Amino acid sequence: MKTPICLSPCSGGNAEDPSADDPYIDFTKASYDFEVTQILDKIEQIQTQKNQTGDFSPILVGLQFPEGLKKHAVELSFLIENITGASVLISADPCFGACDLDAALISKTDVMFHFGHAQLEHTDLEKKVCFIETRSKVDVNPAILSALALLPEKKIGLVTTVQHVHQLENVKSILEDAGKTVVIARGDSRTPYPGQVLGCNFSAARPSKGDCDVYLFIGSGRFHPIGVALSSKKRVVCADPFFSEAFELDFRKFLMQRSAVIGNSMDAETFGIIVSTKNGQCREKLAQRLKEKANAHGKQAVILRMDLVTPDQMLNFPVGAFVNTACPRLAIDDSGRYPVPVLTPQEFEIVLGERDWEDLILDEILEGERE
Amino acid sequence: MKTPICLSPCSGGNAEDPSADDPYIDFTKASYDFEVTQILDKIEQIQTQKNQTGDFSPILVGLQFPEGLKKHAVELSFLIENITGASVLISADPCFGACDLDAALISKTDVMFHFGHAQLEHTDLEKKVCFIETRSKVDVNPAILSALALLPEKKIGLVTTVQHVHQLENVKSILEDAGKTVVIARGDSRTPYPGQVLGCNFSAARPSKGDCDVYLFIGSGRFHPIGVALSSKKRVVCADPFFSEAFELDFRKFLMQRSAVIGNSMDAETFGIIVSTKNGQCREKLAQRLKEKANAHGKQAVILRMDLVTPDQMLNFPVGAFVNTACPRLAIDDSGRYPVPVLTPQEFEIVLGERDWEDLILDEILEGERE
Repeated sequence: MKTPICLSPCSGGNAEDPSADDPYIDFTKASYDFEVTQILDKIEQIQTQKNQTGDFSPILVGLQFPEGLKKHAVELSFLIENITGASVLISADPCFGACDLDAALISKTDVMFHFGHAQLEHTDLEKKVCFIETRSKVDVNPAILSALALLPEKKIGLVTTVQHVHQLENVKSILEDAGKTVVIARGDSRTPYPGQVLGCNFSAARPSKGDCDVYLFIGSGRFHPIGVALSSKKRVVCADPFFSEAFELDFRKFLMQRSAVIGNSMDAETFGIIVSTKNGQCREKLAQRLKEKANAHGKQAVILRMDLVTPDQMLNFPVGAFVNTACPRLAIDDSGRYPVPVLTPQEFEIVLGERDWEDLILDEILEGERE
Repeated sequence: MKTPICLSPCSGGNAEDPSADDPYIDFTKASYDFEVTQILDKIEQIQTQKNQTGDFSPILVGLQFPEGLKKHAVELSFLIENITGASVLISADPCFGACDLDAALISKTDVMFHFGHAQLEHTDLEKKVCFIETRSKVDVNPAILSALALLPEKKIGLVTTVQHVHQLENVKSILEDAGKTVVIARGDSRTPYPGQVLGCNFSAARPSKGDCDVYLFIGSGRFHPIGVALSSKKRVVCADPFFSEAFELDFRKFLMQRSAVIGNSMDAETFGIIVSTKNGQCREKLAQRLKEKANAHGKQAVILRMDLVTPDQMLNFPVGAFVNTACPRLAIDDSGRYPVPVLTPQEFEIVLGERDWEDLILDEILEGERE
């Protein structure tokens, strides 16, 4: 059972997968590492353990994917069932991180494979979960070579997402060959790999963790580098390996957007404080503190508990503004889609006059905060 | 604390509420009975019990509303907190029935008030829940008088939703005064009131429960009466109290739509079998049986577990058709919004050739089925 094979057709486009034109997805050729051999080995091992207790019934295997990888779920389910004889259950709810484990599925299955994210916490929930981080196979070197032209500084801090952390030593060598000193700092326990950042955790980019002159972020999008810049107060250069290009981060537009949201909330008298029920996002104590802050400033507030935060759901609650304690990206990424302003906790403090505008940072969920 | 008062402004339209033009919603004037006095009494009683243990901290109160009533959540939260001193947490996730209790909120609170539905099951989950059924205050008599002209039959079966069950004895009197015999049958344990039907349970409309010549349904929409007609094989007359009108149910269009969905699934080779994780909808054994049926007919199937079933989520899974074992209304109400056909379990049996087309019925979740 060691060689993953392809068993059934899979439709649909697949932007990140060079094998998309092939009617059969070959996981071994995908641009992300699905670790199919390791998955099949793990299932065989758990089945063997079960058989040794005298129970020969097929084990139950759970699969959970983030949205961008869900298209592989059906194919992988057929592959696992056909090769191992295990029964597969697929988590079909939206999933955006290891903060969002399918607790019900974990309780139903002998093992659950969670794709696309590194382990975030170490509660009982994670004990039956195998994290398949789906590391990217993309070559980062061309983007790094482009970035060098934008890096006159001597001491460079390296940060990236889990999909590229295995490339950091290679990148370090390139930079050192160019005469640079490289810092790859370890963040808190929610980011297990040195140099790793999350959309809600930039602790690997604190000056206290290892000082540098500039940060080089490897990955896509502007959200993570903006967090790094606001957290570190340093210049950030971005190297995007998927487009083999580099650019200096400019986040003036971001600051203007957030300032508009804050300004638009100044007259609000009632606030809806959003608490996520997801395992790694649930910050009930913070929500309670924010409600008390609102009351102390003569404002009214309700606590709204929800799993998935969507603009549609918010329409039901007639408040002047929302404060989001769930995934920090929600307030930012979907800004403009909400019926009324959605603030981060830090922005809410600015609205209440408890924080200076200059101290605007991205919201983070840090080690120990949910304990 | 016996007299509910109004404390804060509430924005937004409110089609069913005659007090909508008033900037303050007065729950006692609303067209549905929110039982505010009883809610405040219950909270006071639980707080008193807590105080007697020497713990004088405010109790935690949960509120859960279906979508149409969520607009009252903020107002009611402020009212409860201001009058009783309790702390309120609002469930902001979508909710469509007593099959969809917020288990996480129940576990966090001293009591949870669930609005808009009667108690469905009697598991441990319901023990801390108060069901506020929000009975309608609308006058049903004009619609019943209109319906009489469409009811030449002698023996009339009465069915309705929980919002109007308290009117059935009154309706019975009107019909008896017109010379009719009236049957108000009790369904199974998921419909606690005689004559009550749900979108997923028409057991009060079985010939075996009390034979009649025709059914009179009191309420809005065509979904419930279609279920009654298919379940009972009887003619159904609908009396809509909100529009004070009556009409004979014609469901030819419905049959044509469902036939098209079935026909469109005939060539599917892979099926996604949807299982809901909601407390009163979760039919795992049925899903497993359907998967085995698919395999027995040479088809492939995966089991997809999800909380909220939406067309967007389905786009992630490349299958030829879905079979929905969650809320039976999903396949029907949103037909046309899905990327591929979504079948009920009974329709899937027709696709597989295990059921005659003439035996098409609406899917139901019946007493004992989830045990």
